[in-house]
Amino acid sequence: MSIRIGIMGYGNLGRGVECAIRQNPDMELKAVFTRRAPETVSILTEGVPVYRAEEAEKKKDEIDVLILCGGSATDLPVQTPEYVKWFNVVDSFDTHAKIPEHFEAVDGAAKESGKVAVISAGWDPGLFSLARLYSTACLPEGENYTFWGKGVSQGHSDAVRRVAGVKDARQYTIPCQDALDAVRSGKNPQLTTREKHTRECFVVAEEGADLARIEQEIKTMPDYFADYDTTVHFISEEELKRDHSRLPHGGFVLRSGRTGREKENSYVIEYSLKLDSNPEFTSSVIVAYARAAYKMNAEGQSGCRTPFDVAPAYLSPESAADLRRKYL
Amino acid sequence: MSIRIGIMGYGNLGRGVECAIRQNPDMELKAVFTRRAPETVSILTEGVPVYRAEEAEKKKDEIDVLILCGGSATDLPVQTPEYVKWFNVVDSFDTHAKIPEHFEAVDGAAKESGKVAVISAGWDPGLFSLARLYSTACLPEGENYTFWGKGVSQGHSDAVRRVAGVKDARQYTIPCQDALDAVRSGKNPQLTTREKHTRECFVVAEEGADLARIEQEIKTMPDYFADYDTTVHFISEEELKRDHSRLPHGGFVLRSGRTGREKENSYVIEYSLKLDSNPEFTSSVIVAYARAAYKMNAEGQSGCRTPFDVAPAYLSPESAADLRRKYL
Repeated sequence: MSIRIGIMGYGNLGRGVECAIRQNPDMELKAVFTRRAPETVSILTEGVPVYRAEEAEKKKDEIDVLILCGGSATDLPVQTPEYVKWFNVVDSFDTHAKIPEHFEAVDGAAKESGKVAVISAGWDPGLFSLARLYSTACLPEGENYTFWGKGVSQGHSDAVRRVAGVKDARQYTIPCQDALDAVRSGKNPQLTTREKHTRECFVVAEEGADLARIEQEIKTMPDYFADYDTTVHFISEEELKRDHSRLPHGGFVLRSGRTGREKENSYVIEYSLKLDSNPEFTSSVIVAYARAAYKMNAEGQSGCRTPFDVAPAYLSPESAADLRRKYL
Repeated sequence: MSIRIGIMGYGNLGRGVECAIRQNPDMELKAVFTRRAPETVSILTEGVPVYRAEEAEKKKDEIDVLILCGGSATDLPVQTPEYVKWFNVVDSFDTHAKIPEHFEAVDGAAKESGKVAVISAGWDPGLFSLARLYSTACLPEGENYTFWGKGVSQGHSDAVRRVAGVKDARQYTIPCQDALDAVRSGKNPQLTTREKHTRECFVVAEEGADLARIEQEIKTMPDYFADYDTTVHFISEEELKRDHSRLPHGGFVLRSGRTGREKENSYVIEYSLKLDSNPEFTSSVIVAYARAAYKMNAEGQSGCRTPFDVAPAYLSPESAADLRRKYL
């Protein structure tokens, strides 16, 4: 019998989850829920109904795990504690600073309903967090480094779009090769924000806009760009569409550390991702954690979990014996 | 209160565990057990007794986790099921093909005694296995690749030492850069044994030995060298001692795969280790799993576990809330 999945929210992430389910034969998409008018939403999978979000509760007996594909700013803080009343749920809540309060809210609701919620499933938070935790536990004396990119930052692209005179924009975060090399050498360098990443913006300006002013406003924007070396390229709308319409991303998590009687031995652990599509990869990770949520709940577990609390074997459709034989 | 650790076997691995315990303030070394005469074994940690292996059972109430530092060929198949009768145990059993039967033997004994055993803790099996499992679960359509090195293979060094006329030897396994690059490019190449690794031997020959014959015997040795491009260097005993006395190792686990409606997006996940000391790093991983064994047993769990069955948070001395705040 398949694991019956529902998708709440049909944007980039929801579409990615739909594709990922097709790559996991033990799963079946049962329904998509949307805040838009369902008749305006056309999905890939034939025969699967699209419902209004408000109808979710009525489908609680037909769905094993509801995957929440909303945003971390306003959707998930409301949706995850709400829907865990009726479903096992997974989200990709990624506002790092607010994870503790999100966890508490979801954990309370999940314990009350007897369901399992997995929050912050994705790659950062998610697989990158796991790399940081495993490395730190296995090499207690050392330093952690996380580099992002090369990839499109949606938050930074949005910030550029808010500058007056900007019609559209795409921002790439790029890790600095010198900094990466220094970390890989085991030198445990202290790195400033500017030394770790550069930022590159491709901007379509409104006709007649003052390009010098736009460039200056971007480069000096506090929080987003002021602490980085930023390059701004003005391009045409056609070029933006042709060359910058995908959402690649990735990055590197490194830990360097030492062991030995006199700390004479040094180590570098590196984990990296190179992703053509950030939302599709995040979706693919979420779907693996949906399987985990289902299995844990089937064992009688309830409450909120993060990737830190989920034994790796739960993510796989294969039996424990097969996992030991094939991957250990 | 500290986690009270015992070490069974005081070779490279046992010494590494002793050093690792000093880097983990929540742990305390209580005793070392040896098959040698205890009075001939001098350990680093002051005030810690060394006992004969046979005395272990008598110390069962003074030790929370016994770390088994024997070899996989003959020691661990006997020791792990034996000592789990009295202790939570961890081993680094690394004969991949025999893990299933080792698991069964240990699981039965551990369930009977109510203790937890973690087997195959280390880096391969261990952290590399985890990289394979997580990547496969999160990217179901793709290929896994494992490369080892550059590092010293003890098994291959031993094989060279068995050649007539060889006094001492050290063998390095080296991943082929072209193969690594092809995998990183996302091309999903099919690679032969010869294409993935080369082997380099540093050999001290007996005086008057026939060097050409030794080189030929090494290069054509079935299983160990015949399927590889192998280089043999003859050096002096002093050079071997000066330049090749450490035990570095490491390697790369990669998965490349695809997602999307038409499988149009491609991904590369890479995990790598660069280790000055193979035994000390293995020890450091084992010690983290000793903490996990202790915590799981304290919760009432019993039976055999591999790294696949252990939620990552168990490896860390930090609280779940701190882990979420600092690493997620």
